Amino acid sequence: MNGAENLLRSLHGAGVDVCFANPGTSEMQFVDALDRTRLMHCVLGLFEGVVSGAADGYARMARKPAVTLLHLAPGLANAGANLHNARKARTPILNLVGDHAQRHLRYEAPLTADVPGTAAVFSDWVRTVRSTDTIAGDAMDALAAAWGHPGQVSTLIVPADIGWDEGGTTEPAERAEAQQPRALDGDMLRRAGAALGPEAVILCGGGVLETPEALKRLSDIAAATGTAVLATGPLRRAERGAGHFELPRIPYPVDDALAALSGFRRAILIEALPPVAFFAYPDRPSLLLPERCEIIPLADFDQDGLAAAEALAQEVGAKPQPLTATRPCPAPVSGPMTDEALSAAIAAALPEGAIVVDESLTSANSVAALSTGAPAMSWLAITGGAIGIGIPLATGAAVACRDRPVISLQADGSAMYTLQALWTQAREELNVTTIIFANHGYQILKHELFKVGANPGPEALNMLELNRPELNFVDLARGMGVPGKRVSDPLDLYQSIKDASREPGPFLIEVML
Amino acid sequence: MNGAENLLRSLHGAGVDVCFANPGTSEMQFVDALDRTRLMHCVLGLFEGVVSGAADGYARMARKPAVTLLHLAPGLANAGANLHNARKARTPILNLVGDHAQRHLRYEAPLTADVPGTAAVFSDWVRTVRSTDTIAGDAMDALAAAWGHPGQVSTLIVPADIGWDEGGTTEPAERAEAQQPRALDGDMLRRAGAALGPEAVILCGGGVLETPEALKRLSDIAAATGTAVLATGPLRRAERGAGHFELPRIPYPVDDALAALSGFRRAILIEALPPVAFFAYPDRPSLLLPERCEIIPLADFDQDGLAAAEALAQEVGAKPQPLTATRPCPAPVSGPMTDEALSAAIAAALPEGAIVVDESLTSANSVAALSTGAPAMSWLAITGGAIGIGIPLATGAAVACRDRPVISLQADGSAMYTLQALWTQAREELNVTTIIFANHGYQILKHELFKVGANPGPEALNMLELNRPELNFVDLARGMGVPGKRVSDPLDLYQSIKDASREPGPFLIEVML
Repeated sequence: MNGAENLLRSLHGAGVDVCFANPGTSEMQFVDALDRTRLMHCVLGLFEGVVSGAADGYARMARKPAVTLLHLAPGLANAGANLHNARKARTPILNLVGDHAQRHLRYEAPLTADVPGTAAVFSDWVRTVRSTDTIAGDAMDALAAAWGHPGQVSTLIVPADIGWDEGGTTEPAERAEAQQPRALDGDMLRRAGAALGPEAVILCGGGVLETPEALKRLSDIAAATGTAVLATGPLRRAERGAGHFELPRIPYPVDDALAALSGFRRAILIEALPPVAFFAYPDRPSLLLPERCEIIPLADFDQDGLAAAEALAQEVGAKPQPLTATRPCPAPVSGPMTDEALSAAIAAALPEGAIVVDESLTSANSVAALSTGAPAMSWLAITGGAIGIGIPLATGAAVACRDRPVISLQADGSAMYTLQALWTQAREELNVTTIIFANHGYQILKHELFKVGANPGPEALNMLELNRPELNFVDLARGMGVPGKRVSDPLDLYQSIKDASREPGPFLIEVML
Repeated sequence: MNGAENLLRSLHGAGVDVCFANPGTSEMQFVDALDRTRLMHCVLGLFEGVVSGAADGYARMARKPAVTLLHLAPGLANAGANLHNARKARTPILNLVGDHAQRHLRYEAPLTADVPGTAAVFSDWVRTVRSTDTIAGDAMDALAAAWGHPGQVSTLIVPADIGWDEGGTTEPAERAEAQQPRALDGDMLRRAGAALGPEAVILCGGGVLETPEALKRLSDIAAATGTAVLATGPLRRAERGAGHFELPRIPYPVDDALAALSGFRRAILIEALPPVAFFAYPDRPSLLLPERCEIIPLADFDQDGLAAAEALAQEVGAKPQPLTATRPCPAPVSGPMTDEALSAAIAAALPEGAIVVDESLTSANSVAALSTGAPAMSWLAITGGAIGIGIPLATGAAVACRDRPVISLQADGSAMYTLQALWTQAREELNVTTIIFANHGYQILKHELFKVGANPGPEALNMLELNRPELNFVDLARGMGVPGKRVSDPLDLYQSIKDASREPGPFLIEVML
């Protein structure tokens, strides 16, 4: 058996059965081994940003590491923006990246570049394989690193000759066992318990939001002590909707965020950092909590948020309470396509078991607020601010959960970064309904321009307009084998989502704003 | 004046009047300054790989540095693959990359990442601006670094606050003056002169190929001494067609390349390195020249190829000779769309003053050979093997030369990496005719799969097929405001190119293979 096959068989033994790929010549031995072993389903992306974003969506939903196959430094760089998002989400991803054969690296071949350097900036863990004897073990170490608590992006660089040479053996699954979370600190727990009350806020992120039991216990603490509970930091995945305790999020605009937190004197962090503004602005602080607010880090990212919520509830004797009734979704109505109206239409149309992917940015602002009574759903968001993750994320989530409808809320400017993912949705016959909010501009940047003190003139605004020429997303989708339609009435939007999510395969709805 | 404006005014003073951009919040002060100063034309790309590829095309044709404006580490990473190509081409590019305000960098904001680390892997020169007092000077140093001999990719990282703070001054153009080439070595010249003859080959790259006088003198040397002359290394730009001495290229397939060079005992290098295989393969050498071939590096990349050709011609007393007559282009014929037939159709259709951009890879193999008698043209190729440069490169070349028709020869798989550049072509009303070779597969990888010793089965081949679903490039182009058509007959292809290149604005032709 050659190195590539030993690696693949070992990964499969540890539970890897999907590989997101955009391979090149230096990965042909993996493609060959994938073919011979037939152990993994390969999901092809037409661009590496699709591959890394889909891997992120897959891992978030499958709750296990996603594996990618990428080509040299340029391929890894193309995957970089969505790996950045995955790192911020602490999603477990293992990148297999080919490099030139070892003897070839000393020469200035066209594709020779710094693969380890490229890997370093977008990975938590990097190793270059040095021998066919160790390739399988190296891969299992990389998988274990990804599968830690918290999850990490690990990158294993494989020179081509190590993949094609014969030798080595497979490695047992035990070598890739996930690291367990670090124990909570008893003193910190008592300090957190004493801090609760109306002037305190519990700020939660990471795994807490995707664990309904943790959310339930936080609801009990809030009911027992009057403490506020807010979601913060990267929203990797939230379980929400009917039957779940809904956590409000800290708003994106810096002034709204400062206002939302201004009243708190004590902040308890569970899988979260002290919240920080997305960007710095002249005359605004970077940190969002009031200066004198006491910060109590109850559970860091390498600790267990559910255990922290449970222990804190016990510490203050919070009894399990029934959840307060959630608001039913408002009925969709015909009329102008206001943000409120389209949000209501989407909330009302969400099907049973939906996975909602949110890269809507400045549009559809009220979907979350209006859908607390919608059927229970998983909600995945952009986590690192690198736009162009929504369509790939939806693609990967759908690969992980083929029986669940995916609703992808997508800003138009961001959609254009990784639109190629639509082709993968068609190829894999995934039930993804992509809703494009066509405001024909980088709307968010128009807000930002004012916040840095600019008084934008026509040239500046021209740089933020996407209307010359106007993009037609229905044409673009059709070009990649995905049917679609334009809608300009909220009721039509509602019905189109209902129809599309009931039908198998992908569909695109362009909402004309 | 603030830092951003000082920087822009200084760059403009040194000749920069175009900026290729995909800005974000941390670059809003530049967008604002661009608006206030009205000194530069801003070309917007919907993805950063479009921006860097277009910058490369612009600089190759304008013969001066191109400036980009990019957003943080993810934006720079997205630009990375085409910056890799630009580095291999030794194209002068100056990247302006925003970063968070200095006080914000210590916090874990969503977009916080290692900007200098990202810059390092795809740049020859990197600096982070530390003060508003130095920003203009730093930019001029960066421009000078890019404008050296050879050209370089330089990256200047600008924390947002340094752009928006008041202070500093502009810098005079002299600070950005291009570095002059290093003088030739007299001993090396005599050694090269003595080496010429039928068993010798002159291998040329870099600036030689884009300098008709240098090509002419190489032709004289060949005529006088019987020495072979070949093009090698990254083909940044070649001036070719009627009236130019045509240099054959070393073939891409490793066995063909080895055969083409097997007879030589002495190799003289002018702006070239000893040629190396694109990839390593089992049982094939990495270096392409015979082991015992003597290598004479007459002019390195920091020396002047034209001066070297001239000096070598004088050294051997090569008299200026008339060029041998070039072969007229064959007439296009109706019939099956074979590679020979479509190549002939394209060669015959090339308009006066064309710029040809070549990312055709496995298609249109004979266009170069059949177009030696076509009107004089500039020919730009992919230089670093990172696919997805063709459409951006054509876009930037057209921005540099608005009065010349651009013919873009484009493989379908590679087109999907940076297809968004079509939108910029429409927005800028550029006369680019994009010809997509729709073979519906990663054809080149099918060849490569066999070369690494694989015996590909259905799963492997499936990973290299793009036909499920079939891409429709005419729909995709229409979605970005570019009209197009499909053709399946070479005569129709010929006429369509003629028509499209005569009309202003972009057009796309999908060649059905």
